[in-house]
Order: sequence, then structure tokens, then C-alpha cells
Amino acid sequence: MPRQVDHEARKTAIARALWRVAEARGLDKVSLREVATEAGISLGQLQHYFANRDEMMVFAMEFMGRKNVERVAARMLELGDPSPRARLRAIAHEMLPLDDRAKAGSLMQLSFQLEAARSESLRAFAERQSAALRSVLEGTIALAIRSGDVPPDRDPVEEAALLVALGQGLRSDFHSGALTAEQTVALMDRYLDRVLIQVN
Amino acid sequence: MPRQVDHEARKTAIARALWRVAEARGLDKVSLREVATEAGISLGQLQHYFANRDEMMVFAMEFMGRKNVERVAARMLELGDPSPRARLRAIAHEMLPLDDRAKAGSLMQLSFQLEAARSESLRAFAERQSAALRSVLEGTIALAIRSGDVPPDRDPVEEAALLVALGQGLRSDFHSGALTAEQTVALMDRYLDRVLIQVN
Repeated sequence: MPRQVDHEARKTAIARALWRVAEARGLDKVSLREVATEAGISLGQLQHYFANRDEMMVFAMEFMGRKNVERVAARMLELGDPSPRARLRAIAHEMLPLDDRAKAGSLMQLSFQLEAARSESLRAFAERQSAALRSVLEGTIALAIRSGDVPPDRDPVEEAALLVALGQGLRSDFHSGALTAEQTVALMDRYLDRVLIQVN
Repeated sequence: MPRQVDHEARKTAIARALWRVAEARGLDKVSLREVATEAGISLGQLQHYFANRDEMMVFAMEFMGRKNVERVAARMLELGDPSPRARLRAIAHEMLPLDDRAKAGSLMQLSFQLEAARSESLRAFAERQSAALRSVLEGTIALAIRSGDVPPDRDPVEEAALLVALGQGLRSDFHSGALTAEQTVALMDRYLDRVLIQVN
């Protein structure tokens, strides 16, 4: 009787293996063969799930995206019933390299973006993923405008795009050594202080 | 009689060769051997100038940094005697992927930063280069505060760091397909409108 294989669990195990290899040596150095070895399966078994490297990459980034959404959701739960102001700050902070997981994740994401710049299929995915993050922020900013936390003349679409770009740039500066993690938080907070209406 | 070799010219030719290889295949794929082939010299001749890949990278990034400074200086000359306001906008726009050269350069820089995240010597250089850009911006912002173009309660150090991070993030979003070049300019202008005091 053939052993039942939980395909989702196996794909997740492969994604985790890819992450370990990428963390150790850089995403650009990751090959299907190495990931199969790290995951303890054969190359053929891995190719059953992912026909090529791009497909595996997209799955790994989706996996990270889901983990990020779970982190933000967990943070919201911790905050109880957060105000739009607190919600906005929490999402913005999640974009920063504040712990080891976030550091590894953001380095991987930078690396993925760079690969996306040279691959049509990866770029299409990167666009969708970025649009998803922006749309969460757009909704949060729209709520913050309704609640009077953000001035009504701000455009949620622009504000979301600026926040995403700033988060990305702060991460880059952290990874290249220009800013410490603490400085990225201080700068993001300073930026948010200007987006939010000050209450005293 | 041995042929006289202009060492600076040859190093520059090597930097240009590195750029061509990197543009075609990505900075992470560049090896000393390929650059030597592209530059039309032997590997031994190349190693006379650069003992290893990191040294060659640093020279290529310095070369790009000098070119960027020359571009900004040329823009300033075009502007005649620019106001601090015009100067700030000109520098900010130079950070954006507005023409093919700037696009290739910024992609290369992202790639370099990623390598810097894994190499002590590259990171030390990336830090110096980023500090140089920020210090130019800090001076420009300090001037803009003196001239009344930027509110006096702004801190030039913070403003410069935010601008550099935003420029970087907008470039990343351009390369990963999330924003068009026009959108990066519109967002940067919107951001600058908030940094600058509005005059009507």
C-alpha cells in the first residue's frame, strides 16, 4: 500500500528547506538540487512539486507572505481592538528588520526582487504580492482618515505606496549597514508622526 | 621599449567591462575571468589591478558614485544658480530610475547592497558611500532650512536619511514592477511637497 503523502506539508517542508539554503548562502545561489538535498528528498520528488526554480521561488515567497500576514494578525490580536493609528504603526513596524526572522525575511525579499527584475514570471508575482501589501495599507489608511487620525486630504493609494517604499528603503539601508535596526524604527516613527494627526 | 600603460584608464576600462557583464547577466554572476575577457585583457593583467572580486566591485561602485556626482553637478550647472528648493528636488530626482543609465545603475546598486549584506569589506564601503550621499543631502537640507524652504524644526540628518531610504525603496519598487518610473517621480514629488514649505 503506497504511503499517503500530505502534499501541502511536503511543499511547506520544501519551502523551509529553500529558506535554510538561502539564509546560509544567499537566494541567488539556491538550486533545485540543493533544496532537494536539504529537504531530504530526491531531485525527482522535488520536481514533482516544482517544475523549475521560478515555481519554487514563487511558492517560497508566497509562504513568507502568508507568514507575514499571520504575524500582523497576531500583533493585532495582542493589541486587542487597535485604533487605526495603532494598526498603521503595527503594520509599518512589521516591515522593519526588528528580529532575526524579519531580518532574514527582508534580505530574502530584496534578493527576490532583484531576481524579479530579470524574470517576467517572478516579476508578475512580485507585483501581485506588492499590490496585496499596499491594498492592506490603503484600507488601513482609509480607516484612519475616517477616524480622524490622518488628514482627509491624504490619498490612501499614495500614502500606502510611500509607506511601502519607505519600509523597503529602510530595510535596504539596514542590510547594507547604513542604518541600525533602531534607526529604521526611529525614522519610520518620525515619518508616521507626520502622516498621523498629532493628538496631545 | 615597454608600452606605457595608463593605469587609471585601464582601471576605468575594466570598470566599464564589469558594468557591461553585470548589465547583461546580473552583478552576482560576474567573475574576474569574465570581466577580463570582456575588457580584452588576460586574467593576470586584471589581477594586477584587482587582487579579488571584492576589490573590483568596490572600484566599480566608486566609479558609479563619481559618475553620479558628475551627473548631479551637471544638473546644477544646467539650473544656473539653483535655489535650495530646486537643488533638493534635483538631487532627489537623480535617485530615481528616469533614464536607461539610471535604471541600470540603480539595479546594480541594489545588487551591490545585497552582496554587501554578506561581505564585511563590501559593507564597509557601502556604508561610506551611503554616508557620502546623505552628507550631501544634509548640507542641502540645512541650506534649505536657512533659506526658509524647509521648516526650521526639521533635522537635516533625519530628513536626509528618510529621503535616501525613500529613493531606494522607490527604485526597488520600480525594478520589481510595482511602480512605473513616472509613479516613482510623482511619489517623490508628493513627498518633497511635504518637506518643503509651500510658496504660492
